[in-house]
Amino acid sequence: MKILVLNSGSSSVKYQMFNAADEQVMAEGIVGKIGDAGAYLEHKAKGEKIRRDVIAMNHKEAFQVVIDVLVDKNVGVLGAVSEISAVGHRVVHGGDKFFASTVITDEVIDKIEECVSLSPLHNPPNLLVIKEAKKLLPGVPQVAVFDTAFHHAMPEKAYMYALPYEYYRDYKIRRYGFHGISHRYVSVRAAEIVQRPIEELKIITCHLGNGSSMAALDKGVSIDTSLGFTPLEGLIMGTRCGDLDPAITFFLSREVGLSIDEIDNLMNKKSGLLGISGVSNDVREITFQAHSGNKRCQLALEMCAYRIKKYIGAYITVLSSLDALVFTAGIGEKSPEMRSMVCKDMGALGIELDEKKNAEVMGIESIISSAESKVKVMVVPTNEEKIIAIDTLKLAEEEISRSEKGRT
Amino acid sequence: MKILVLNSGSSSVKYQMFNAADEQVMAEGIVGKIGDAGAYLEHKAKGEKIRRDVIAMNHKEAFQVVIDVLVDKNVGVLGAVSEISAVGHRVVHGGDKFFASTVITDEVIDKIEECVSLSPLHNPPNLLVIKEAKKLLPGVPQVAVFDTAFHHAMPEKAYMYALPYEYYRDYKIRRYGFHGISHRYVSVRAAEIVQRPIEELKIITCHLGNGSSMAALDKGVSIDTSLGFTPLEGLIMGTRCGDLDPAITFFLSREVGLSIDEIDNLMNKKSGLLGISGVSNDVREITFQAHSGNKRCQLALEMCAYRIKKYIGAYITVLSSLDALVFTAGIGEKSPEMRSMVCKDMGALGIELDEKKNAEVMGIESIISSAESKVKVMVVPTNEEKIIAIDTLKLAEEEISRSEKGRT
Repeated sequence: MKILVLNSGSSSVKYQMFNAADEQVMAEGIVGKIGDAGAYLEHKAKGEKIRRDVIAMNHKEAFQVVIDVLVDKNVGVLGAVSEISAVGHRVVHGGDKFFASTVITDEVIDKIEECVSLSPLHNPPNLLVIKEAKKLLPGVPQVAVFDTAFHHAMPEKAYMYALPYEYYRDYKIRRYGFHGISHRYVSVRAAEIVQRPIEELKIITCHLGNGSSMAALDKGVSIDTSLGFTPLEGLIMGTRCGDLDPAITFFLSREVGLSIDEIDNLMNKKSGLLGISGVSNDVREITFQAHSGNKRCQLALEMCAYRIKKYIGAYITVLSSLDALVFTAGIGEKSPEMRSMVCKDMGALGIELDEKKNAEVMGIESIISSAESKVKVMVVPTNEEKIIAIDTLKLAEEEISRSEKGRT
Repeated sequence: MKILVLNSGSSSVKYQMFNAADEQVMAEGIVGKIGDAGAYLEHKAKGEKIRRDVIAMNHKEAFQVVIDVLVDKNVGVLGAVSEISAVGHRVVHGGDKFFASTVITDEVIDKIEECVSLSPLHNPPNLLVIKEAKKLLPGVPQVAVFDTAFHHAMPEKAYMYALPYEYYRDYKIRRYGFHGISHRYVSVRAAEIVQRPIEELKIITCHLGNGSSMAALDKGVSIDTSLGFTPLEGLIMGTRCGDLDPAITFFLSREVGLSIDEIDNLMNKKSGLLGISGVSNDVREITFQAHSGNKRCQLALEMCAYRIKKYIGAYITVLSSLDALVFTAGIGEKSPEMRSMVCKDMGALGIELDEKKNAEVMGIESIISSAESKVKVMVVPTNEEKIIAIDTLKLAEEEISRSEKGRT
């Protein structure tokens, strides 16, 4: 079975062609800058990487570019489109409607559409590509894998906000959490690495990328997470502020004269590491400048690490104890400095890095805690596409066997 | 020396007459419902308590009521107004201008006025009463004791928000923290109770009242606290929501159609314990109803305790370890249920209650942890007036000795 995995953002479609038979990635790539004259395709297959300009004024055209390159005589990996047996889509927001991956029917599409007000930036491109894929690949099972679903088992005390209860009942305002596909992947790998059943483990996962979140996992189940109703809460991110006094918004409106749209833009696009450092949203660049004496860059790193530290403490309390602390995503995988700052002075909580090992690990699976550390600290590169492929494979096989039974 | 301590809110003036000679409270009381036809005076002195209707259409009239009752022939404690040697005022917001208690000069009044935009509800009544007291008690030293000052030594990484740096520089948007007078009092008492120098201790103080906050104290210095730019951030309070996804405000504006003023009112006045329970902002009432099977009351208590737990974990991480956990203010002093919920399953962090002792302690100083508990858990009733009196006495004596030197 060959599975096409799709991850659509507001101006990009990422794809991966996955062969279930040998669990190998046949091809992967991205159509970027959709809707822009500078739209491009990056495609990696057969050990080669190409980049070319393409016409992709919308997500429909972008999806056509993906299909075309997959069957391309030179750089493609499929003889024909019909070789695609199933399509898996990452869908950002499943609201309180989806607690697990699901085969996409018309009814499912309607429900994803009902979640658009919860995720106005992310769900619409997901929907565009789902509809296009259904049109171009009729009869091929399509599966939605939700970024929120992994967090659905959080207890009420963790997902409720202290607003009047009606706002939960009538508007579904609650903590949903995101990056669930990533938290799920790395926690499963972490248990494999320490060679213990996940059902015995208490794990904290730190997905630190341009968007960042942490999750507290008890027996492999997410019981709390730092992103909330939207991907703005929690940690300090590339350009997002994370936690702050909600009354700052009132001050920005009344005393600074900003509109809601301006405050939204400020907190989502101009804050976080970029806002503090004034330099960049990229931890590598900020680390470089901090080393060169830039104090605001140093402050940005310290604030970012400090916030992560506080969440680690909060989640240890919530879990009662801790077996493993996992770092993943861009910063988590590739910034030994950030990992070191986060784990500093945590000995009393059972967390102690092997600083030498930590300094060497860049983007590879590895335990980076000292031999004495009670908590295993590790780096696990995330692989959201693999989870999407696994769920899609499973549900598509069920779907196919169901429809074959229906025929006999 | 006899010191008048004043704590003025938007519709009340609380007072205490303190005799420095024997450290006794001579009289205390409150003028409530200022500006309302139902304004009243409650006054306690000489072992008696009276309550009477008064005319207090504004803070000026309310202050006159205080002065009148203090020199009243029957229930008063002063022969004449001139016996008042100094006045201490609680001032809520000292912004980044006041790091310690200070004698009130005209310049100080101007600076407190500059902090009004940071605390539009609290600083104006403080200022009204300060001005009135200066007029009615000319030549008597007046001292401002700030609720924010105790937190002034927080490190940058703890007080900065991840907004663009300009918003700190230009608008002073940062974490200030409140309840500083209370955190200071109970931490000093906690060190006395465990008979160790505060310079050796790591303490977490939980001021849990209708407004609530926690502080992480290293060597007696506040290095982080849960209230922020305003008294809205952090814990779940009587009617305030505390922490939530800042983007909820954008949703409430766009999808629910609320104005900024309505959202402010919602989050400050209708949320918290009241909003979740739908019943009351009073933990006693909520606990009673939870015991009778009201699920939303049970949820309100669980959410409140869960949030406190998370902050305890965060602050243990920030402090690296913990010696004492202190509960104070209405809920902290008088709700064994809440203390028990907070400390449940915290053994791995060194916190273990003596449940029997805990159940017995209501509003009195007491250690409530088990003999085995690494962390001393204790109840310390707060006494903000005492701190105000102590600071006022010290600064007034200096002021008087300075002016006497000036005369010779």
